[in-house]
Amino acid sequence: MEKIILDDVLAQMRTALESNDLTTASSIIEALRPADQADIFSDLDDHEQNKLLPQINPADAADIFEELYDEEAAELAVQLPLTTLVRIVNEMEPDEAADLLDDLEPEQAEAILIQLEAAHQIKPLIDYPDDTAGGLMTSAYLTLQRRMNAAQAIAAIRAWRPDEETIYYLFVTDRLKRLAGVINLRQLIVAEPFTPITEIMASDVIHVTVETDQEHCADLMLRYDLLALPVVDNDKHLLGIITIDDLVDVIQEEASEDIQRLAGAEPLDRAYLDTSIWSITRKRIGWLLLLFFTATLTGWVMDLYQTQLQTMVALTIFIPMLIGTGGNAGSQTTATIIRAMAVGDVDWDDAWRVWLHEVGIGLVLGLGMGAIAYFLALTWMPNANLALTVAASIFGIVLWATGAGSLLPLLATRFKIDPTVVSGPVMSTLVDATGLLIYFNIARFILGL
Amino acid sequence: MEKIILDDVLAQMRTALESNDLTTASSIIEALRPADQADIFSDLDDHEQNKLLPQINPADAADIFEELYDEEAAELAVQLPLTTLVRIVNEMEPDEAADLLDDLEPEQAEAILIQLEAAHQIKPLIDYPDDTAGGLMTSAYLTLQRRMNAAQAIAAIRAWRPDEETIYYLFVTDRLKRLAGVINLRQLIVAEPFTPITEIMASDVIHVTVETDQEHCADLMLRYDLLALPVVDNDKHLLGIITIDDLVDVIQEEASEDIQRLAGAEPLDRAYLDTSIWSITRKRIGWLLLLFFTATLTGWVMDLYQTQLQTMVALTIFIPMLIGTGGNAGSQTTATIIRAMAVGDVDWDDAWRVWLHEVGIGLVLGLGMGAIAYFLALTWMPNANLALTVAASIFGIVLWATGAGSLLPLLATRFKIDPTVVSGPVMSTLVDATGLLIYFNIARFILGL
Repeated sequence: MEKIILDDVLAQMRTALESNDLTTASSIIEALRPADQADIFSDLDDHEQNKLLPQINPADAADIFEELYDEEAAELAVQLPLTTLVRIVNEMEPDEAADLLDDLEPEQAEAILIQLEAAHQIKPLIDYPDDTAGGLMTSAYLTLQRRMNAAQAIAAIRAWRPDEETIYYLFVTDRLKRLAGVINLRQLIVAEPFTPITEIMASDVIHVTVETDQEHCADLMLRYDLLALPVVDNDKHLLGIITIDDLVDVIQEEASEDIQRLAGAEPLDRAYLDTSIWSITRKRIGWLLLLFFTATLTGWVMDLYQTQLQTMVALTIFIPMLIGTGGNAGSQTTATIIRAMAVGDVDWDDAWRVWLHEVGIGLVLGLGMGAIAYFLALTWMPNANLALTVAASIFGIVLWATGAGSLLPLLATRFKIDPTVVSGPVMSTLVDATGLLIYFNIARFILGL
Repeated sequence: MEKIILDDVLAQMRTALESNDLTTASSIIEALRPADQADIFSDLDDHEQNKLLPQINPADAADIFEELYDEEAAELAVQLPLTTLVRIVNEMEPDEAADLLDDLEPEQAEAILIQLEAAHQIKPLIDYPDDTAGGLMTSAYLTLQRRMNAAQAIAAIRAWRPDEETIYYLFVTDRLKRLAGVINLRQLIVAEPFTPITEIMASDVIHVTVETDQEHCADLMLRYDLLALPVVDNDKHLLGIITIDDLVDVIQEEASEDIQRLAGAEPLDRAYLDTSIWSITRKRIGWLLLLFFTATLTGWVMDLYQTQLQTMVALTIFIPMLIGTGGNAGSQTTATIIRAMAVGDVDWDDAWRVWLHEVGIGLVLGLGMGAIAYFLALTWMPNANLALTVAASIFGIVLWATGAGSLLPLLATRFKIDPTVVSGPVMSTLVDATGLLIYFNIARFILGL
């Protein structure tokens, strides 16, 4: 819904809450779609939220909990009376309910769990780490039996409690509950009633195990255009399914993490404005400090060449351009390689080809930039040797930055380190220090300092 | 499929092609899933591709074309005989076919179009820009009529040519072909046969127009967990639908673009290793040059304070640390704000709150970093006033970088500029120059230079 309309709804809601007209307030929020409900709800203050929540239909309250950031939902849950909370959690999807319970204190989670209708579905989901297939999957889905025919399968669907999330692919299991095939709803409708489903289903089903990393699950679903991905144990028993809506959230989350890590900031766990100043500071200061200390390396290089600098202070003027260009050329390279890895275009086996490719790019870029730098330097300081020093340094620095920038993310992945962590600012800080070494040595050689 | 197995399949394929055993070669590739087919196919050289393609079942060839990068598909198409190409394009999804035709020379596209079976479906799609709803939508979908009942609707589905892509939501139109409602397949199956579909359908349907930007389409589908999004004209006539599989590609593409632009590199149009050195160089040199020239600003600031630098060369040693920290603090901020905007957590209306938040963070970070910098500087050069200068500068620079870094992406969006373009390296280059101004002025004041 458009923001303007939502602001309007929020205003109506506040008026209703102020005059204690809880019936109007709850009917306003119940008329909205889940994402809008959650937005409006988040904008209310704690006091208003606590007043409203017990009045809302538990199914709508469950939708709101599912849409909120995990931490926000947990904080809200802590403040609710147990009976209200149980009523709401009963209406949540098992995977979302498990995530919520996992974020609560163990005693509170236990107290809720024993009162839940679907405790047996939710309990096994709680212990899986959030970022694995086990943590993503839901246990509420319909499975068909191998021995059914099409008509029996449709009857099973009719009899099943509606659940939009998981109806698009239907997974078929054998008597031992092992994954045997997959069928889509359309195939079922088109088939003659007495066709055995073994004849319609595809038996070569792409699946993952509970431990599979969420990024790998996302890769598979994207690559093969899957709307649902079955999760099995080591004996191929079907344990749950991951649906596309959870998956797109994972893709967004991974992109957010990459972007923030590349800028040297740890990703946030909740909405920006709801994250406290302290908590954001904590997420940034570590990198800032680390980079500050690595930058002393660059300072140390400058200290080393004090004599040269003192003899020719003009050298200092070009330092920002040189280290800036090196850092930029390196970041361009790492960003390209990191994305190429993320979408599966390159991996470690291509390292040699990638490196050659970047060295080629570095040569062309370095020559071009070097030529331009020569003339720029010359217009600034009419000293041909100084201009030559600057041009040769730019060439060397760009070549070095692209070459190193191509290997760094590949090496990081090889050693199971998140490439974004080492590739962003670490990259440019290293290029700063080494770039200056190149510069001062070329200066020593050409200018004879 | 695992890479090792694919490498194995590729080797078998090559052996078959070398011995001119085209039947084996085509049956090997036809047995794979589309994404794997495209991978294997891309790894073949031009000669092998041209030999193989006419032998493959057109439906499989169509899948391969759909999976390839746009540019790669167009290059391949140019080399094929017209009859082969027509047979393949006939099997492609209308939206994918239109994208391909759009990438060909107008005459070639026209020659293919007049021979296509579904020319009337494909033709209107060609002219829409790729990054709008019109460019994303497919025109092959089943619509139900308002006057149908559930049994008639199911009969219509049975009669319709199978198409996995578009079956999950069914859109209902009135007699004038205007969008009237939406229904999902499950609801249809569960309903009693004679229920009018007007009773089952939801009539409040989220929809977009052909001009809607793809990013906004993605936002809507993500926000409301939609598997399909209907596209209408200004009179609400249904023109096409966007499906979730195209959408996840958009999300990936936008994330790639953001990450590369933040690093000052224009996004690539095709797989990394298939993009030529020249073409990558062209995508990078523009930014590199621009940033080089803006870095002269920093050099110019240093030139301005030559006297101070000459009096105290020790000042230069801290320059890398100061400008590095400013750039890093600024990038951390912009990256966080850009992601918060991308996922809809903040927008221009929150600018004031965002700025206050970042100023708070800047104060805390600046004080912390300043204190540490003081002791670091003191251990390096035993000069309390110099250490104080460094500490005060770090405080000022961090505060300035977080404050400016929070507003820059919001301002860019406000003026319809992609925030990633101005926020990455431009940000750090600006912080470099202004950071030095802060440093030299504090130095002048404290050290009396």
